[in-house]
Amino acid sequence: MPAGTTERSACWAASKRSGLCGARALGSRLLAGTLDASVGDSFKDRDGVSLNAARAAAGLTGSLADVRLPVGHYSAFVELHIEQGPLLEQRNVPLGVVTAIAAPAGLKIRIEGEGGHAGAVLMPARKDAFLAAAEIALAVESAALSTGSVDTVGTVGVCEVFPGAVNSIPSRVRIEVDVRDIDQERRDSALRKIAAACDEVSLRRGVAVRTEMVNADPPAQCSPAVVEALAQACDAHGLSFDRMISRAYHDSLFMSRIAPTAMLFIPCRDGVSHRPDEYSSPEAIAQGTLVLADALRRLAE
Amino acid sequence: MPAGTTERSACWAASKRSGLCGARALGSRLLAGTLDASVGDSFKDRDGVSLNAARAAAGLTGSLADVRLPVGHYSAFVELHIEQGPLLEQRNVPLGVVTAIAAPAGLKIRIEGEGGHAGAVLMPARKDAFLAAAEIALAVESAALSTGSVDTVGTVGVCEVFPGAVNSIPSRVRIEVDVRDIDQERRDSALRKIAAACDEVSLRRGVAVRTEMVNADPPAQCSPAVVEALAQACDAHGLSFDRMISRAYHDSLFMSRIAPTAMLFIPCRDGVSHRPDEYSSPEAIAQGTLVLADALRRLAE
Repeated sequence: MPAGTTERSACWAASKRSGLCGARALGSRLLAGTLDASVGDSFKDRDGVSLNAARAAAGLTGSLADVRLPVGHYSAFVELHIEQGPLLEQRNVPLGVVTAIAAPAGLKIRIEGEGGHAGAVLMPARKDAFLAAAEIALAVESAALSTGSVDTVGTVGVCEVFPGAVNSIPSRVRIEVDVRDIDQERRDSALRKIAAACDEVSLRRGVAVRTEMVNADPPAQCSPAVVEALAQACDAHGLSFDRMISRAYHDSLFMSRIAPTAMLFIPCRDGVSHRPDEYSSPEAIAQGTLVLADALRRLAE
Repeated sequence: MPAGTTERSACWAASKRSGLCGARALGSRLLAGTLDASVGDSFKDRDGVSLNAARAAAGLTGSLADVRLPVGHYSAFVELHIEQGPLLEQRNVPLGVVTAIAAPAGLKIRIEGEGGHAGAVLMPARKDAFLAAAEIALAVESAALSTGSVDTVGTVGVCEVFPGAVNSIPSRVRIEVDVRDIDQERRDSALRKIAAACDEVSLRRGVAVRTEMVNADPPAQCSPAVVEALAQACDAHGLSFDRMISRAYHDSLFMSRIAPTAMLFIPCRDGVSHRPDEYSSPEAIAQGTLVLADALRRLAE
């Protein structure tokens, strides 16, 4: 088993309890009430320190329960962000106005078959967990393609095989699945197809398949009024823009529950983000800030 | 990356240089001349100590080049072994006379696609290395089943996915494949089907697939005369036996190159071997030894 697996499992366990994938968008989830204040105690870092303990150690007071805002507290919410994709740079367009935000559903799938010697167990007697995982992974791809929309994506990014030796039939496999869309019903239809494939593979191959939904936030449509304010601000400054979909998820995904929301993207080099070489030019940042300010002014009027 | 991967890679590198899969059957391979004496320097343990250095440290002298025996040096070779499978125990048969020994072909397959964010890269633009690996694994199963013989087995026991994160499209995957049969042409036909599947998947998915044959020893048919001597010895002592295939490989696989060879199996509990709970009863061991001695006497006459 790889070093760190235990820690990651603990982290996953915390995620499961809280419905929270890592610590991402913690603030906006609490503000929007999509996360319960009890995560202050249940959500722990890799050293076992709870969120509330970390807050107390940093001198912060007050209850997370008081963080939640009522719907309508803000009249609009606008988030400026780098694109985290290559499209604006490729098209040489300075700004993107986001009309919808995709949201991931995360699945953990554990497959238990039967191990054995790769020479001694004949093919008809096998219950190979990895072959079952291979079929499920291909079913994830098929499910994403089957919606007919380019906005549905499905990925198996993690696959761990036990015992993991060339002369051993895999007895157990763990895979992690990510399915995203900007349309929840379409995403859910893909998830249903994946669940059906798990059942079919389990039955046909005689392996146990346990599926656990780790998170499944609904995607968001941006507010037409806020999109329009951003578009007008772009026009006012003579800056061209594309209407885009955000395929990564952001605080805006959660803030859209309590306020009319949209996002503004600026180009980033090679679409790279969350890496040391993430880069947006000072000019791009200035243009984004200018349009953000102008849009906020329009929304405030 | 799991701890120990570097060590294992070093071990693989040694295997590749020597054509030797681990240190198994080192003596019989050298006796039969299927392994060159140069492995004394090239084959190293995990600490980098060569076979010759370990021999010298143990006070052993002489050259490995002198170990090789001419064909006909022995008039017969008989190997007594636990079955390493469940059949004798299940059938309540005390002895197995081996008529053929299967041999594995080992393949390492490296697949390189393109990584990317699981949300940002749309399905038509993907070159997912894991989906390619999934198809190749299923092709290994199909190739083994396609020969029409129950004696052909194919297994993917190792699958390592990089970078191995739920929100990352796999960019690189390494799998290890084991294909066995008692008939070399049948095994090679399965290997050709796997190679064709690698080519087809590579082309269709736009991923690079590099295949490396780690070892591919020919299987062995046992000597009818030695099989007959074992059968007569069983009969002489009133012990029933099954004619069987050895699906694991043994020193006999290599000794059969220079001497008429067969094997004798005794039952082992639950088919388990190479584990602390490996067990054969004293009675089974005594019966095996008795028949071995009687067969050797018959062959010596």
